[in-house]
Amino acid sequence: MNAPVRILGIDPGLRRTGWGVIDCEGARVSFVACGSVDPDPKLDLGPRLALLHEGLTRLIADFSPDEAAVEETFVNADSRSALKLGAARGVAMLVPAQAGLVIGEYAPNHVKKTVVGAGHAEKQQIRLMVKVLLPKAVISSDDAGDALAIALCHAQNRGMRALKQRLA
Amino acid sequence: MNAPVRILGIDPGLRRTGWGVIDCEGARVSFVACGSVDPDPKLDLGPRLALLHEGLTRLIADFSPDEAAVEETFVNADSRSALKLGAARGVAMLVPAQAGLVIGEYAPNHVKKTVVGAGHAEKQQIRLMVKVLLPKAVISSDDAGDALAIALCHAQNRGMRALKQRLA
Repeated sequence: MNAPVRILGIDPGLRRTGWGVIDCEGARVSFVACGSVDPDPKLDLGPRLALLHEGLTRLIADFSPDEAAVEETFVNADSRSALKLGAARGVAMLVPAQAGLVIGEYAPNHVKKTVVGAGHAEKQQIRLMVKVLLPKAVISSDDAGDALAIALCHAQNRGMRALKQRLA
Repeated sequence: MNAPVRILGIDPGLRRTGWGVIDCEGARVSFVACGSVDPDPKLDLGPRLALLHEGLTRLIADFSPDEAAVEETFVNADSRSALKLGAARGVAMLVPAQAGLVIGEYAPNHVKKTVVGAGHAEKQQIRLMVKVLLPKAVISSDDAGDALAIALCHAQNRGMRALKQRLA
């Protein structure tokens, strides 16, 4: 049997960074908590990133996750937006690394495919599937729902990796 | 008269982040130190960002700058590279914000125009001009030279702002 593992999923964004914590024991998953860190958009980039860092650091202190999963966000927007999103994602990768957590990175289509079964699922379908897999989840926002989906994707992937290692 | 102000210039990059510290008193500038933070490129993104955070945090502890200046890096590359560079830039903006420093952001062309007088100056010209303005500077790399140029750009800009305020 596998020991229970706590996973923190993060959906990074500068305006709003969603987060979701689940426990995973073998193939069983259960909801722990979710929410979002929303730094005041009127602040400059530096202070917003500092608030994001503070919020995520507090989450890790509060929930003591064993592993983290971060969405590998791509954007079709201009490079200015990509750089801003990249800054938020940098902080989202930094905080679990500072806590020494294993970090999984997953492309959005991979998350959708793992959780819903289709790479181009709508936000509504993801939220529905997250509710099916985590019936006790109280999902406060789309970003929190996405973060739970990322955590679920990581749970499934680490399970597959463990299985492959046993069969090798 | 203005009190002397210490400025930390940062040229963010994931492979190599250049930094340069100068003192500025009115229109007079002087070299303090420069170098680069080079996290092991074989590491994953999270640990590299953690090393960058650690390196920049130590610099601020060592040199106690009053203000920081970060290059607003743009890239014409694909969005994957933009996101990685954005992650490094996020950490470069985060660390001075955590220390409560004022942060100036300057586009590369603005830095070149301020320091060299032309928006499309070559690396060689920038380095030469940095040496003219800071004759005691020992410039270890192009990234360190760029970081000094960013600090010089900030020094000039804050001087202009102060002058405008006095004349207003």
